[in-house]
Amino acid sequence: MAPHRHLLKLTDQPLRIGVALFPGFQALDVFGPLDCLNTLSKLRPLTLTLLSSTLDPISTYHPEISNAISQSVVPTSTYKTAPPIDLLLVPGGQGARGSDAAVLEVIEFIKTVYPSLKYLVTVCTGSGLAARAGVLDGKRATTNKRAWKETVAVRDAVIWVPVARWVVDDKVWSSAGVSAGIDVILAWIAEYFGEKLANEVSERIEYTRQLDSTVDAFAELYGLV
Amino acid sequence: MAPHRHLLKLTDQPLRIGVALFPGFQALDVFGPLDCLNTLSKLRPLTLTLLSSTLDPISTYHPEISNAISQSVVPTSTYKTAPPIDLLLVPGGQGARGSDAAVLEVIEFIKTVYPSLKYLVTVCTGSGLAARAGVLDGKRATTNKRAWKETVAVRDAVIWVPVARWVVDDKVWSSAGVSAGIDVILAWIAEYFGEKLANEVSERIEYTRQLDSTVDAFAELYGLV
Repeated sequence: MAPHRHLLKLTDQPLRIGVALFPGFQALDVFGPLDCLNTLSKLRPLTLTLLSSTLDPISTYHPEISNAISQSVVPTSTYKTAPPIDLLLVPGGQGARGSDAAVLEVIEFIKTVYPSLKYLVTVCTGSGLAARAGVLDGKRATTNKRAWKETVAVRDAVIWVPVARWVVDDKVWSSAGVSAGIDVILAWIAEYFGEKLANEVSERIEYTRQLDSTVDAFAELYGLV
Repeated sequence: MAPHRHLLKLTDQPLRIGVALFPGFQALDVFGPLDCLNTLSKLRPLTLTLLSSTLDPISTYHPEISNAISQSVVPTSTYKTAPPIDLLLVPGGQGARGSDAAVLEVIEFIKTVYPSLKYLVTVCTGSGLAARAGVLDGKRATTNKRAWKETVAVRDAVIWVPVARWVVDDKVWSSAGVSAGIDVILAWIAEYFGEKLANEVSERIEYTRQLDSTVDAFAELYGLV
Protein backbone atom coordinates (compact mmCIF):
# COMPACT_ATOMS: atom_id res chain seq x y z
CA MET A 1 0.00 0.00 0.00
CA ALA A 2 1.63 3.22 -1.15
CA PRO A 3 2.17 5.68 1.70
CA HIS A 4 1.11 9.26 1.10
CA ARG A 5 -1.16 8.20 -1.74
CA HIS A 6 -3.33 11.14 -0.66
CA LEU A 7 -0.62 13.51 -1.88
CA LEU A 8 -1.11 12.25 -5.40
CA LYS A 9 -4.80 13.03 -5.68
CA LEU A 10 -6.30 16.01 -7.46
CA THR A 11 -7.14 17.83 -4.25
CA ASP A 12 -9.72 20.18 -5.74
CA GLN A 13 -11.74 17.40 -7.36
CA PRO A 14 -14.46 16.05 -5.09
CA LEU A 15 -14.07 12.34 -4.45
CA ARG A 16 -17.20 10.67 -5.76
CA ILE A 17 -18.74 8.20 -3.29
CA GLY A 18 -21.38 5.64 -4.29
CA VAL A 19 -23.35 3.33 -2.01
CA ALA A 20 -24.91 0.14 -3.39
CA LEU A 21 -28.32 -0.31 -1.77
CA PHE A 22 -30.70 -3.26 -2.01
CA PRO A 23 -33.76 -4.48 -0.05
CA GLY A 24 -32.71 -5.79 3.35
CA PHE A 25 -29.38 -3.96 3.64
CA GLN A 26 -28.04 -3.62 7.20
CA ALA A 27 -28.57 -0.04 8.40
CA LEU A 28 -25.26 0.40 10.27
CA ASP A 29 -23.24 -1.11 7.41
CA VAL A 30 -24.32 1.96 5.45
CA PHE A 31 -24.69 4.68 8.08
CA GLY A 32 -21.54 3.91 10.08
CA PRO A 33 -19.28 4.70 7.11
CA LEU A 34 -21.68 7.36 5.79
CA ASP A 35 -21.70 9.31 9.03
CA CYS A 36 -17.89 9.38 8.86
CA LEU A 37 -18.09 10.54 5.24
CA ASN A 38 -20.79 13.11 6.09
CA THR A 39 -18.44 14.48 8.74
CA LEU A 40 -15.45 14.35 6.39
CA SER A 41 -17.43 16.23 3.74
CA LYS A 42 -17.51 19.27 6.03
CA LEU A 43 -13.72 19.34 5.67
CA ARG A 44 -13.00 17.91 2.20
CA PRO A 45 -15.11 17.92 -0.99
CA LEU A 46 -17.11 14.74 -1.56
CA THR A 47 -20.15 13.86 -3.64
CA LEU A 48 -22.56 11.05 -2.81
CA THR A 49 -24.79 8.82 -4.91
CA LEU A 50 -27.15 6.37 -3.20
CA LEU A 51 -27.76 3.64 -5.77
CA SER A 52 -30.72 1.31 -6.00
CA SER A 53 -32.67 -0.60 -8.65
CA THR A 54 -35.31 2.14 -8.66
CA LEU A 55 -35.74 5.59 -7.16
CA ASP A 56 -38.34 4.30 -4.69
CA PRO A 57 -37.36 4.40 -1.00
CA ILE A 58 -35.27 1.35 -0.22
CA SER A 59 -35.79 -0.48 3.06
CA THR A 60 -33.75 -2.49 5.53
CA TYR A 61 -36.81 -4.78 5.66
CA HIS A 62 -36.27 -8.35 4.52
CA PRO A 63 -39.16 -10.83 4.21
CA GLU A 64 -37.18 -13.62 5.90
CA ILE A 65 -37.32 -11.62 9.14
CA SER A 66 -40.78 -10.22 8.68
CA ASN A 67 -41.34 -9.20 12.29
CA ALA A 68 -38.26 -6.98 12.46
CA ILE A 69 -38.54 -3.19 12.48
CA SER A 70 -37.05 -1.37 9.49
CA GLN A 71 -36.27 1.98 7.90
CA SER A 72 -36.26 3.28 4.33
CA VAL A 73 -33.81 5.67 2.71
CA VAL A 74 -34.17 7.61 -0.52
CA PRO A 75 -31.89 6.57 -3.41
CA THR A 76 -30.51 9.30 -5.65
CA SER A 77 -29.77 7.20 -8.75
CA THR A 78 -30.60 3.85 -10.26
CA TYR A 79 -27.79 1.43 -11.14
CA LYS A 80 -28.62 1.93 -14.82
CA THR A 81 -28.14 5.72 -14.59
CA ALA A 82 -25.19 5.76 -12.16
CA PRO A 83 -22.77 8.68 -12.53
CA PRO A 84 -18.98 8.07 -12.36
CA ILE A 85 -17.91 6.77 -8.96
CA ASP A 86 -14.46 6.74 -7.33
CA LEU A 87 -15.31 4.81 -4.17
CA LEU A 88 -18.11 2.26 -4.06
CA LEU A 89 -19.37 1.18 -0.63
CA VAL A 90 -21.13 -2.20 -0.58
CA PRO A 91 -23.00 -3.03 2.62
CA GLY A 92 -24.19 -6.45 3.71
CA GLY A 93 -27.26 -7.62 5.54
CA GLN A 94 -29.97 -10.21 5.23
CA GLY A 95 -30.72 -8.97 1.71
CA ALA A 96 -27.15 -9.58 0.51
CA ARG A 97 -27.89 -13.29 0.21
CA GLY A 98 -29.92 -15.16 -2.37
CA SER A 99 -30.38 -14.47 -6.04
CA ASP A 100 -33.40 -12.28 -6.52
CA ALA A 101 -33.34 -9.62 -9.23
CA ALA A 102 -32.20 -6.80 -6.92
CA VAL A 103 -29.22 -8.78 -5.62
CA LEU A 104 -28.22 -9.86 -9.11
CA GLU A 105 -28.35 -6.23 -10.26
CA VAL A 106 -25.97 -5.19 -7.47
CA ILE A 107 -23.56 -7.99 -8.37
CA GLU A 108 -23.71 -7.07 -12.08
CA PHE A 109 -23.14 -3.39 -11.20
CA ILE A 110 -20.06 -4.23 -9.09
CA LYS A 111 -18.66 -6.32 -11.96
CA THR A 112 -19.24 -3.53 -14.49
CA VAL A 113 -18.04 -0.58 -12.43
CA TYR A 114 -15.07 -2.25 -10.71
CA PRO A 115 -12.40 -1.48 -13.36
CA SER A 116 -13.16 2.26 -13.15
CA LEU A 117 -13.26 2.42 -9.33
CA LYS A 118 -10.40 3.81 -7.31
CA TYR A 119 -11.65 2.00 -4.21
CA LEU A 120 -14.13 -0.73 -3.40
CA VAL A 121 -15.12 -0.78 0.28
CA THR A 122 -17.22 -3.69 1.54
CA VAL A 123 -18.83 -3.99 4.95
CA CYS A 124 -19.99 -7.23 6.54
CA THR A 125 -21.48 -9.67 4.01
CA GLY A 126 -21.12 -7.01 1.31
CA SER A 127 -17.88 -8.81 0.49
CA GLY A 128 -20.02 -11.78 -0.52
CA LEU A 129 -21.62 -9.62 -3.22
CA ALA A 130 -18.20 -8.42 -4.43
CA ALA A 131 -16.95 -12.03 -4.37
CA ARG A 132 -19.89 -13.19 -6.47
CA ALA A 133 -19.07 -10.39 -8.95
CA GLY A 134 -15.65 -12.06 -9.34
CA VAL A 135 -13.70 -8.93 -8.45
CA LEU A 136 -12.14 -10.48 -5.31
CA ASP A 137 -10.66 -13.50 -7.10
CA GLY A 138 -7.06 -14.00 -5.95
CA LYS A 139 -7.44 -11.19 -3.43
CA ARG A 140 -7.37 -11.23 0.37
CA ALA A 141 -10.69 -10.19 1.92
CA THR A 142 -12.73 -10.58 5.09
CA THR A 143 -16.40 -10.56 6.02
CA ASN A 144 -18.91 -10.95 8.87
CA LYS A 145 -17.69 -13.58 11.34
CA ARG A 146 -21.10 -14.88 12.40
CA ALA A 147 -22.02 -15.44 8.73
CA TRP A 148 -18.49 -16.61 7.87
CA LYS A 149 -19.23 -20.13 6.63
CA GLU A 150 -22.00 -19.25 4.21
CA THR A 151 -20.27 -16.10 2.96
CA VAL A 152 -16.87 -17.63 2.14
CA ALA A 153 -18.71 -20.52 0.43
CA VAL A 154 -19.93 -18.22 -2.35
CA ARG A 155 -16.46 -18.03 -3.98
CA ASP A 156 -13.40 -20.13 -3.20
CA ALA A 157 -11.14 -18.11 -5.52
CA VAL A 158 -11.05 -15.43 -2.80
CA ILE A 159 -8.33 -15.63 -0.13
CA TRP A 160 -10.66 -15.24 2.84
CA VAL A 161 -8.96 -13.88 6.00
CA PRO A 162 -10.75 -15.10 9.15
CA VAL A 163 -9.03 -12.96 11.81
CA ALA A 164 -9.31 -9.34 10.70
CA ARG A 165 -11.27 -6.22 11.56
CA TRP A 166 -10.54 -5.23 7.96
CA VAL A 167 -8.30 -6.24 5.07
CA VAL A 168 -6.75 -4.12 2.31
CA ASP A 169 -5.68 -5.73 -0.96
CA ASP A 170 -4.95 -3.45 -3.88
CA LYS A 171 -7.97 -1.18 -4.16
CA VAL A 172 -10.31 -3.44 -2.17
CA TRP A 173 -10.98 -2.59 1.47
CA SER A 174 -13.17 -5.26 3.10
CA SER A 175 -14.36 -5.17 6.70
CA ALA A 176 -15.76 -7.58 9.25
CA GLY A 177 -19.38 -7.37 10.41
CA VAL A 178 -21.56 -4.28 10.72
CA SER A 179 -19.78 -1.87 13.11
CA ALA A 180 -16.42 -2.75 11.52
CA GLY A 181 -17.50 -0.54 8.62
CA ILE A 182 -16.69 2.46 10.81
CA ASP A 183 -13.14 1.23 11.37
CA VAL A 184 -12.49 0.40 7.72
CA ILE A 185 -13.70 3.76 6.45
CA LEU A 186 -11.64 5.61 9.08
CA ALA A 187 -8.60 3.54 8.02
CA TRP A 188 -9.34 4.44 4.41
CA ILE A 189 -9.68 8.14 5.30
CA ALA A 190 -6.29 7.89 7.05
CA GLU A 191 -4.77 6.37 3.92
CA TYR A 192 -6.33 8.78 1.45
CA PHE A 193 -6.54 12.04 3.40
CA GLY A 194 -3.98 11.35 6.15
CA GLU A 195 -4.08 10.33 9.82
CA LYS A 196 -4.87 13.83 11.00
CA LEU A 197 -8.17 13.97 9.17
CA ALA A 198 -9.09 10.42 10.17
CA ASN A 199 -8.52 11.36 13.80
CA GLU A 200 -10.49 14.57 13.36
CA VAL A 201 -13.47 12.62 12.00
CA SER A 202 -13.31 9.93 14.70
CA GLU A 203 -13.03 12.60 17.41
CA ARG A 204 -16.03 14.48 16.05
CA ILE A 205 -18.14 11.32 16.24
CA GLU A 206 -16.58 10.48 19.64
CA TYR A 207 -15.48 7.10 18.35
CA THR A 208 -12.34 5.33 19.54
CA ARG A 209 -10.82 3.95 16.34
CA GLN A 210 -9.49 0.45 16.10
CA LEU A 211 -6.04 1.17 14.61
CA ASP A 212 -4.91 -2.43 14.23
CA SER A 213 -6.71 -4.24 11.42
CA THR A 214 -5.71 -7.65 12.84
CA VAL A 215 -7.43 -7.21 16.22
CA ASP A 216 -10.68 -9.18 15.96
CA ALA A 217 -12.44 -10.47 19.07
CA PHE A 218 -15.31 -11.81 16.99
CA ALA A 219 -13.29 -14.31 14.96
CA GLU A 220 -12.60 -16.11 18.22
CA LEU A 221 -16.16 -15.69 19.50
CA TYR A 222 -17.53 -17.32 16.37
CA GLY A 223 -14.96 -20.15 16.39
CA LEU A 224 -12.72 -19.07 13.51
CA VAL A 225 -9.44 -19.14 15.45
CA MET B 1 -32.08 2.31 38.93
CA ALA B 2 -34.26 -0.70 39.75
CA PRO B 3 -32.48 -3.98 38.98
CA HIS B 4 -34.47 -6.55 37.03
CA ARG B 5 -36.89 -3.93 35.79
CA HIS B 6 -37.12 -6.08 32.67
CA LEU B 7 -38.87 -8.75 34.70
CA LEU B 8 -41.75 -6.38 35.34
CA LYS B 9 -42.58 -5.71 31.71
CA LEU B 10 -45.50 -7.23 29.83
CA THR B 11 -43.33 -9.54 27.77
CA ASP B 12 -45.84 -10.19 25.01
CA GLN B 13 -46.52 -6.51 24.34
CA PRO B 14 -44.19 -5.03 21.73
CA LEU B 15 -42.20 -2.14 23.10
CA ARG B 16 -43.09 0.91 21.03
CA ILE B 17 -40.03 2.86 19.83
CA GLY B 18 -40.26 6.38 18.42
CA VAL B 19 -37.48 8.43 16.82
CA ALA B 20 -37.72 12.23 16.68
CA LEU B 21 -36.38 13.37 13.31
CA PHE B 22 -35.73 16.92 12.08
CA PRO B 23 -33.76 18.51 9.22
CA GLY B 24 -30.03 18.21 9.84
CA PHE B 25 -30.14 15.27 12.27
CA GLN B 26 -26.85 13.35 12.62
CA ALA B 27 -27.12 10.04 10.75
CA LEU B 28 -25.24 7.85 13.24
CA ASP B 29 -27.13 9.33 16.22
CA VAL B 30 -30.17 7.65 14.70
CA PHE B 31 -28.80 4.59 12.93
CA GLY B 32 -26.36 3.47 15.62
CA PRO B 33 -29.19 2.86 18.13
CA LEU B 34 -31.62 1.85 15.37
CA ASP B 35 -29.34 -0.87 14.02
CA CYS B 36 -29.17 -2.28 17.56
CA LEU B 37 -32.96 -2.10 17.82
CA ASN B 38 -33.39 -3.60 14.33
CA THR B 39 -31.22 -6.51 15.48
CA LEU B 40 -33.06 -6.76 18.80
CA SER B 41 -36.40 -6.84 16.97
CA LYS B 42 -35.41 -10.19 15.44
CA LEU B 43 -35.40 -11.53 19.01
CA ARG B 44 -38.01 -9.48 20.89
CA PRO B 45 -41.16 -7.71 19.64
CA LEU B 46 -40.71 -4.00 18.93
CA THR B 47 -42.59 -1.46 16.85
CA LEU B 48 -41.01 1.63 15.31
CA THR B 49 -42.33 5.07 14.42
CA LEU B 50 -40.07 7.55 12.64
CA LEU B 51 -41.49 10.97 13.49
CA SER B 52 -41.12 14.17 11.53
CA SER B 53 -43.04 17.40 10.92
CA THR B 54 -44.34 16.01 7.62
CA LEU B 55 -44.27 12.66 5.84
CA ASP B 56 -41.75 13.98 3.28
CA PRO B 57 -38.30 12.38 3.34
CA ILE B 58 -36.23 14.02 6.04
CA SER B 59 -32.58 14.81 5.40
CA THR B 60 -29.35 15.02 7.36
CA TYR B 61 -28.68 18.11 5.23
CA HIS B 62 -28.34 21.40 7.08
CA PRO B 63 -27.98 24.74 5.27
CA GLU B 64 -25.19 25.90 7.59
CA ILE B 65 -22.96 23.20 6.10
CA SER B 66 -24.26 23.42 2.58
CA ASN B 67 -21.34 21.59 0.94
CA ALA B 68 -21.72 18.45 3.06
CA ILE B 69 -23.15 15.25 1.62
CA SER B 70 -26.43 14.05 3.08
CA GLN B 71 -29.07 11.30 3.11
CA SER B 72 -32.85 11.28 3.51
CA VAL B 73 -35.00 8.78 5.37
CA VAL B 74 -38.73 8.24 5.16
CA PRO B 75 -40.80 9.20 8.24
CA THR B 76 -43.75 7.01 9.17
CA SER B 77 -45.76 9.54 11.19
CA THR B 78 -45.99 13.24 11.81
CA TYR B 79 -45.62 14.60 15.33
CA LYS B 80 -49.29 15.61 15.22
CA THR B 81 -50.44 12.06 14.44
CA ALA B 82 -47.93 10.16 16.61
CA PRO B 83 -49.13 6.84 18.02
CA PRO B 84 -48.39 5.93 21.66
CA ILE B 85 -44.64 5.57 22.31
CA ASP B 86 -42.81 3.81 25.14
CA LEU B 87 -39.25 4.82 24.27
CA LEU B 88 -38.47 8.06 22.45
CA LEU B 89 -35.02 8.40 20.85
CA VAL B 90 -33.90 11.99 20.29
CA PRO B 91 -30.80 12.40 18.11
CA GLY B 92 -28.64 15.50 17.83
CA GLY B 93 -26.80 17.07 14.95
CA GLN B 94 -26.38 20.45 13.34
CA GLY B 95 -30.17 20.73 13.04
CA ALA B 96 -30.70 20.33 16.79
CA ARG B 97 -29.69 23.94 17.32
CA GLY B 98 -31.57 27.14 16.60
CA SER B 99 -35.25 27.86 16.79
CA ASP B 100 -36.79 27.22 13.41
CA ALA B 101 -40.27 25.72 13.24
CA ALA B 102 -39.09 22.10 12.91
CA VAL B 103 -36.86 22.32 15.99
CA LEU B 104 -39.59 24.00 18.02
CA GLU B 105 -42.02 21.23 17.02
CA VAL B 106 -39.59 18.56 18.28
CA ILE B 107 -39.16 20.41 21.59
CA GLU B 108 -42.93 20.81 21.97
CA PHE B 109 -43.44 17.11 21.17
CA ILE B 110 -40.89 16.04 23.80
CA LYS B 111 -42.61 18.25 26.37
CA THR B 112 -46.05 16.81 25.53
CA VAL B 113 -45.13 13.14 25.26
CA TYR B 114 -42.64 12.96 28.15
CA PRO B 115 -45.11 12.13 30.94
CA SER B 116 -46.38 9.08 29.03
CA LEU B 117 -42.93 7.78 28.04
CA LYS B 118 -41.31 4.85 29.81
CA TYR B 119 -37.89 5.94 28.53
CA LEU B 120 -36.37 9.00 26.91
CA VAL B 121 -33.04 8.25 25.21
CA THR B 122 -31.01 11.18 23.90
CA VAL B 123 -27.90 10.96 21.75
CA CYS B 124 -25.33 13.74 21.32
CA THR B 125 -26.91 17.22 21.27
CA GLY B 126 -30.34 15.60 21.37
CA SER B 127 -30.12 16.22 25.11
CA GLY B 128 -30.15 19.93 24.29
CA LEU B 129 -33.61 19.48 22.74
CA ALA B 130 -34.83 17.55 25.79
CA ALA B 131 -33.33 20.22 28.05
CA ARG B 132 -35.13 22.99 26.16
CA ALA B 133 -38.35 21.00 26.60
CA GLY B 134 -37.77 21.34 30.35
CA VAL B 135 -37.93 17.60 30.99
CA LEU B 136 -34.31 17.38 32.22
CA ASP B 137 -34.69 20.04 34.93
CA GLY B 138 -33.08 18.77 38.14
CA LYS B 139 -31.85 15.66 36.36
CA ARG B 140 -28.33 14.48 35.58
CA ALA B 141 -27.60 14.30 31.85
CA THR B 142 -24.72 14.42 29.40
CA THR B 143 -24.23 15.48 25.78
CA ASN B 144 -21.69 15.86 22.96
CA LYS B 145 -18.32 16.92 24.36
CA ARG B 146 -17.18 19.00 21.39
CA ALA B 147 -20.44 20.97 21.54
CA TRP B 148 -20.47 20.97 25.35
CA LYS B 149 -20.35 24.68 26.05
CA GLU B 150 -23.19 25.72 23.75
CA THR B 151 -25.36 22.72 24.65
CA VAL B 152 -25.21 23.05 28.44
CA ALA B 153 -25.88 26.78 28.04
CA VAL B 154 -29.44 26.10 26.81
CA ARG B 155 -30.67 25.16 30.30
CA ASP B 156 -28.88 25.62 33.60
CA ALA B 157 -31.55 23.74 35.57
CA VAL B 158 -30.03 20.51 34.21
CA ILE B 159 -27.23 18.84 36.20
CA TRP B 160 -24.86 18.42 33.26
CA VAL B 161 -22.29 15.62 33.70
CA PRO B 162 -19.11 16.34 31.73
CA VAL B 163 -17.27 13.02 32.07
CA ALA B 164 -19.67 10.30 30.91
CA ARG B 165 -20.25 8.03 27.95
CA TRP B 166 -23.86 8.02 29.10
CA VAL B 167 -25.93 8.99 32.14
CA VAL B 168 -29.13 7.43 33.52
CA ASP B 169 -31.44 9.47 35.73
CA ASP B 170 -34.93 8.11 36.33
CA LYS B 171 -36.31 7.35 32.88
CA VAL B 172 -33.86 9.56 31.00
CA TRP B 173 -30.87 7.93 29.32
CA SER B 174 -28.59 10.55 27.76
CA SER B 175 -25.41 9.79 25.85
CA ALA B 176 -22.29 11.61 24.75
CA GLY B 177 -21.64 12.41 21.08
CA VAL B 178 -22.73 10.43 18.02
CA SER B 179 -21.24 6.91 18.38
CA ALA B 180 -22.06 6.93 22.12
CA GLY B 181 -25.66 6.31 21.06
CA ILE B 182 -24.68 2.69 20.40
CA ASP B 183 -23.36 2.29 23.94
CA VAL B 184 -26.36 3.91 25.60
CA ILE B 185 -28.90 1.81 23.71
CA LEU B 186 -26.96 -1.39 24.47
CA ALA B 187 -26.87 -0.37 28.15
CA TRP B 188 -30.62 0.25 27.99
CA ILE B 189 -31.20 -3.14 26.32
CA ALA B 190 -29.16 -4.73 29.12
CA GLU B 191 -31.35 -2.98 31.71
CA TYR B 192 -34.68 -3.74 30.07
CA PHE B 193 -34.10 -7.12 28.42
CA GLY B 194 -31.05 -8.33 30.37
CA GLU B 195 -27.30 -8.55 29.79
CA LYS B 196 -27.58 -11.69 27.70
CA LEU B 197 -29.66 -10.00 25.01
CA ALA B 198 -27.51 -6.86 25.05
CA ASN B 199 -24.44 -9.04 24.49
CA GLU B 200 -26.23 -10.98 21.75
CA VAL B 201 -27.04 -7.75 19.91
CA SER B 202 -23.54 -6.30 20.29
CA GLU B 203 -22.00 -9.58 19.13
CA ARG B 204 -24.24 -9.68 16.07
CA ILE B 205 -23.10 -6.21 15.06
CA GLU B 206 -19.49 -7.11 16.01
CA TYR B 207 -19.33 -4.17 18.37
CA THR B 208 -17.26 -4.16 21.58
CA ARG B 209 -19.55 -2.52 24.11
CA GLN B 210 -18.37 0.13 26.51
CA LEU B 211 -19.66 -1.32 29.78
CA ASP B 212 -18.56 1.54 32.04
CA SER B 213 -20.66 4.66 31.57
CA THR B 214 -17.98 6.81 33.24
CA VAL B 215 -15.20 6.02 30.76
CA ASP B 216 -15.01 9.02 28.44
CA ALA B 217 -11.85 9.83 26.52
CA PHE B 218 -13.53 12.72 24.75
CA ALA B 219 -14.28 14.79 27.85
CA GLU B 220 -10.53 15.09 28.32
CA LEU B 221 -9.85 15.63 24.63
CA TYR B 222 -12.26 18.56 24.59
CA GLY B 223 -10.93 20.04 27.83
CA LEU B 224 -13.78 19.19 30.20
CA VAL B 225 -11.66 17.43 32.84
